[in-house]
Amino acid sequence: MRKLYIGNKNYSSWSMRPWVLMKQAGIAFDEVMVRFDSFEAESQFKHTIAALNPVAKVPVLVDGDLVVWDTLAIAEYLAETFPEKQLWPKAVADRARARSICAEMHSGFGGLRGHCGMNIEASLPEVGARLLEEQPEVRSDLDRIVQMWSDLLGTHGGPLLFGDFTIADAYFAPIGTRIKTYGLPVPPAISAYIERVQALPGIKAWIDEALAEKDFLQFEEPYRTAR
Amino acid sequence: MRKLYIGNKNYSSWSMRPWVLMKQAGIAFDEVMVRFDSFEAESQFKHTIAALNPVAKVPVLVDGDLVVWDTLAIAEYLAETFPEKQLWPKAVADRARARSICAEMHSGFGGLRGHCGMNIEASLPEVGARLLEEQPEVRSDLDRIVQMWSDLLGTHGGPLLFGDFTIADAYFAPIGTRIKTYGLPVPPAISAYIERVQALPGIKAWIDEALAEKDFLQFEEPYRTAR
Ligand SMILES: N[C@@H](CCC(=O)N[C@@H](CS)C(=O)NCC(=O)O)C(=O)O
Ligand SMILES: N[C@@H](CCC(=O)N[C@@H](CS)C(=O)NCC(=O)O)C(=O)O
Repeated sequence: MRKLYIGNKNYSSWSMRPWVLMKQAGIAFDEVMVRFDSFEAESQFKHTIAALNPVAKVPVLVDGDLVVWDTLAIAEYLAETFPEKQLWPKAVADRARARSICAEMHSGFGGLRGHCGMNIEASLPEVGARLLEEQPEVRSDLDRIVQMWSDLLGTHGGPLLFGDFTIADAYFAPIGTRIKTYGLPVPPAISAYIERVQALPGIKAWIDEALAEKDFLQFEEPYRTAR
Repeated sequence: MRKLYIGNKNYSSWSMRPWVLMKQAGIAFDEVMVRFDSFEAESQFKHTIAALNPVAKVPVLVDGDLVVWDTLAIAEYLAETFPEKQLWPKAVADRARARSICAEMHSGFGGLRGHCGMNIEASLPEVGARLLEEQPEVRSDLDRIVQMWSDLLGTHGGPLLFGDFTIADAYFAPIGTRIKTYGLPVPPAISAYIERVQALPGIKAWIDEALAEKDFLQFEEPYRTAR
């Protein structure tokens, strides 16, 4: 059975992407959760993951002899292994657009990633309000998300970014959780999209398990001192 | 005819990747070079590229009605549009590995990218030596490159990372130019691989045109005051 190595569900936004993708698409896998004790070289986490891949980050997909790391490579691997699941949009132009925005997420949105780390169980609207005031990058990342999602929901008429569920919705799911955690203001159509995504069984399962985790990792918590 | 929008050939490492990929694979395209006057909102560069895509970065591929941005999305789009060119390695396992390392490049190697900006015409070995002393990230990025390329050249027996030319060689070509510009020390087998890549007609064409450019952009030159 293919195995997906992930980090803490409450914190690991990159792990969330392929996990919710496979769950929602009905691709069977075993999960191996490797707790983030720390990211230091001598941590148990680094030790375990470095044995699988030289980058020593999660997620990692192990499928028989094959070890695939990095969310985008995992997504492409799954898309070509399960063509019948149509993980990318069907139309060439939509597929190209979906890849552009996923690659944009993969290498960009430094403001949101740096200042608004994923923290599903937390509620930090005062922090969000302050960051929007003080960090122009957080503001411009949020503006770009609203513009991107509005365009796509307008073009395809919803319910999801390209109509049906695709890799793009999985790829942006951790942005939806951040918008809620930090109370970032978005138009109603965007909130409604976030709620629709979070109601999908594959996404809901991750969020429920994140909430059940009840682990507090100080190095992932710039804004709280306890749960 | 499809059009590829790029920046200055001497400096724009991201532009280099799809350009050399298409040249070397024999995929016809027109080039539109948009000079980096600056990256400020009011620059001519930003103005031109923002009209094409919301991220306002190069490269951008325009193919009829389709606008594809981001190197990795462009690479995937080309790979599926020209299956006969075998832009990705043919074997599933090799293809997955190629995607893992390209995604790793796409979102990583911050040390090399931040401190050793591409500058094909420059020769800055003293800077390289100093950076290796002072910046552990430059050292660890270089170590990872040497390990990655050595593994792949060992497994496939060369001449290129996966035997024949693939997206992976195009994706890492700007790392080869940096290793030369900054005189970063690498084992002979790695230097030989860099030379083989730079001798490929599609890569050589870019490098020759970069050398012919003779433009000096102060904001891309932390280490020189003139050519
Ligand atoms: N580009 C990678 C990013 C993976 C990543 O940064 N994962 C984090 C956890 S969410 C990690 O493992 N960090 C460990 C570290 O930075 O040492 C991907 O898309 O998979
Ligand atoms: N992730 C993007 C990165 C593109 C990128 O950063 N391009 C640079 C030129 S090499 C750029 O256009 N910079 C303009 C800016 O940062 O405003 C890709 O892979 O295409």
